[in-house]
Amino acid sequence: MPVMRNIGTLYQCLDEGGQGDVQPIDDAALVWYGERITWVGKETDLPTDGVDGLDDGEAHNAGGYIVMPGLIDCHTHLAFGGWREDEFAMRCKGASYLDIAKQGGGIMKTVGQTREASEDELFDHASIHRWFMRCFGVTTVECKSGYGLTVADELKLLRVYKQLAESEDQPGRIVATLLGAHVVPPEFKGNRTGYLDLLCEELVPRVAEEGLARFNDVFVEQGAFTPDEARRVLECGVRHGLTPKLHVDQLRDGGGAELAAEVGAVSADHLEYTSDNGIAAMAEAGVVAVTLPMASLMLRQPPLDARRFIDAGVPVAVATDFNPGSAPCHYLPWSMSLACMMNYMTPCEALKGATTYAAKALALDGQVGSLKPGMRADFIRCFIPSVELWFVQMAPSYIGDVYIAGKQMLRSRGMKEGEGRDA
Amino acid sequence: MPVMRNIGTLYQCLDEGGQGDVQPIDDAALVWYGERITWVGKETDLPTDGVDGLDDGEAHNAGGYIVMPGLIDCHTHLAFGGWREDEFAMRCKGASYLDIAKQGGGIMKTVGQTREASEDELFDHASIHRWFMRCFGVTTVECKSGYGLTVADELKLLRVYKQLAESEDQPGRIVATLLGAHVVPPEFKGNRTGYLDLLCEELVPRVAEEGLARFNDVFVEQGAFTPDEARRVLECGVRHGLTPKLHVDQLRDGGGAELAAEVGAVSADHLEYTSDNGIAAMAEAGVVAVTLPMASLMLRQPPLDARRFIDAGVPVAVATDFNPGSAPCHYLPWSMSLACMMNYMTPCEALKGATTYAAKALALDGQVGSLKPGMRADFIRCFIPSVELWFVQMAPSYIGDVYIAGKQMLRSRGMKEGEGRDA
Repeated sequence: MPVMRNIGTLYQCLDEGGQGDVQPIDDAALVWYGERITWVGKETDLPTDGVDGLDDGEAHNAGGYIVMPGLIDCHTHLAFGGWREDEFAMRCKGASYLDIAKQGGGIMKTVGQTREASEDELFDHASIHRWFMRCFGVTTVECKSGYGLTVADELKLLRVYKQLAESEDQPGRIVATLLGAHVVPPEFKGNRTGYLDLLCEELVPRVAEEGLARFNDVFVEQGAFTPDEARRVLECGVRHGLTPKLHVDQLRDGGGAELAAEVGAVSADHLEYTSDNGIAAMAEAGVVAVTLPMASLMLRQPPLDARRFIDAGVPVAVATDFNPGSAPCHYLPWSMSLACMMNYMTPCEALKGATTYAAKALALDGQVGSLKPGMRADFIRCFIPSVELWFVQMAPSYIGDVYIAGKQMLRSRGMKEGEGRDA
Repeated sequence: MPVMRNIGTLYQCLDEGGQGDVQPIDDAALVWYGERITWVGKETDLPTDGVDGLDDGEAHNAGGYIVMPGLIDCHTHLAFGGWREDEFAMRCKGASYLDIAKQGGGIMKTVGQTREASEDELFDHASIHRWFMRCFGVTTVECKSGYGLTVADELKLLRVYKQLAESEDQPGRIVATLLGAHVVPPEFKGNRTGYLDLLCEELVPRVAEEGLARFNDVFVEQGAFTPDEARRVLECGVRHGLTPKLHVDQLRDGGGAELAAEVGAVSADHLEYTSDNGIAAMAEAGVVAVTLPMASLMLRQPPLDARRFIDAGVPVAVATDFNPGSAPCHYLPWSMSLACMMNYMTPCEALKGATTYAAKALALDGQVGSLKPGMRADFIRCFIPSVELWFVQMAPSYIGDVYIAGKQMLRSRGMKEGEGRDA
């Protein structure tokens, strides 16, 4: 399956230039061989030989539409038990995140339902959402644990992700993150140190030993963990080969961005209340900022101003934060539209945030998130003439074909070839 | 095609009770005959005879999912030439509605492109969006003119709607609204009275004579029309049998809600800045409030607080405002989710707002928007166990089958029977 011709615009999304530089090529072609891209450029420059895949005979026609890297959702809590739609109705009437947590809702409610669920149940449920995400163009998904909060239940969640990653029915890349330090579970109330000991002495070593996660994440927030506690957990992870990630500054400025810079986190996520000092520290240390506008919308928080980060030289990734309470929507393109409307990003900036910089937030830059020779052939075709028109319309109808590692996963959902060309 | 059984929950959405009363029936069945509903109730209460359609033999199984009235989008600008995605990028960087209008963008840019488009081009373009809307469960669409602003071009737009309404390929109800008083076109700059004369002496009589519209709408706003100008146009419409509608108080409190009450408008739409006095006047006069949260999100305006209207006894309808600039998304369920998150409505209130009260905003109450005997058999099935779960997830994936006037239009897009049951 080697050549796609007649691409109206191909967005390369290279890890160079600024946040808005997505390196579009009009009238483009794309060649791949096996799982890898072998050539990208103007169709008129397509070589007649010397490129692997070119003579393979299978031609794909993009019909003049746009092609871009497969989308990367770099922050999700994919596997969980139950939903929290009751809290949504409470929130609709004005209840806050902390109000809900105090009434036994929030994360701890999901923890209870997740502990009760079997690994198979969690797998089935996560698979459905993984399937939808792929239909919507998402080819790589980061998945956090954090709703188990016992050694056994955290391992159970991470094994669901391992099963998903290895499932032949579920193509696409899964990147697992340990979030044992999501909140302190009630059985350790009054004994926070005991829970930190459990994380550092049992859970982290066990996860590392079984190779169940690539990253180690901590929720630094009032009601969750302090920077000092986070430092202990993250340093322990580093000793076991797990790279730090952080949830920070979501409900107030807790110095989380500075902490992310200090511990060498690959990304710091949320960041609604981050100070200028925090942004400068992230820029200096090369930490990727991950904006999660769906959560800001759901929790009615002042969304972060991405311009502050971009102007300071911090790459901004865009993700869903998919979870059963504060961001229950698995549809990444909407988060990208929201990033435009709420975080003051342009459509091209949001595209780079859900491809190139999302890959960087997962330390996968150089492998996925850009269309250039040597990268994995993960790409999508959308039935619309430009990224600007896609995000401005926010319409789910425009997702076209999804290719993962060179294989076409899905054709033309709900739209016939050629329809919607000028929509 | 007479009986649908095994409905997990059927939402009747009757025009009684409060905004949140959607009269759910668990384990329900629905019977229809031809275009009309003949019976609704608990499946165990299903009569064995005496109901038209029951013995017709064709059984539909809802698979335990939810059924609700077909959605009604009671405020759209469906037909237009071109898009304004360039303004979206400007808005992403902070430009305001009025900034954009001053630079030759906004409504007047679309007017130029609409005047250049042929009736066939406009029809093809509108058809695509109408088709998507129907896929997403929208069975009735209100459509405004207002991008022509000459007699010929306004008639052209309204004829597109007439063609859509009569198209056999395009089932579903279309309700046309004249919006000749959208803005004063540049050729009447310095001669506003001349444009009002044109509207009242030529356009309104012509539209009425040809039966091209049911409603007459005016945009009352700085840069558009004053309340006095609106009164003249609306009173002229009333004399010709066109019922008033209004765009009011979107960018500031312009006394538009009071005007809507005074002229007997069927609805007043936008209302971001409406005063308590305006709300009281609407309640007194029985004017439906139409919230358009997509436009508030796009224009970064303080969204209206629906609780103020609901508490005052004003029914609140929810619509998309679909248009090429300030609300370019045709996906009504997303506006319903936004109404929950931004306008403080509960999911059931938003459902009533896009069914029962949307019908009322189109003077179609008693015909569509509720599931009860005698109403048109417009209904949808969604692959999700409750409305709360649907809107909280905002996922386009859950739209199932769409029935219009008793005929099934579409089956199971992108999801196999039984999948997602517990999602």
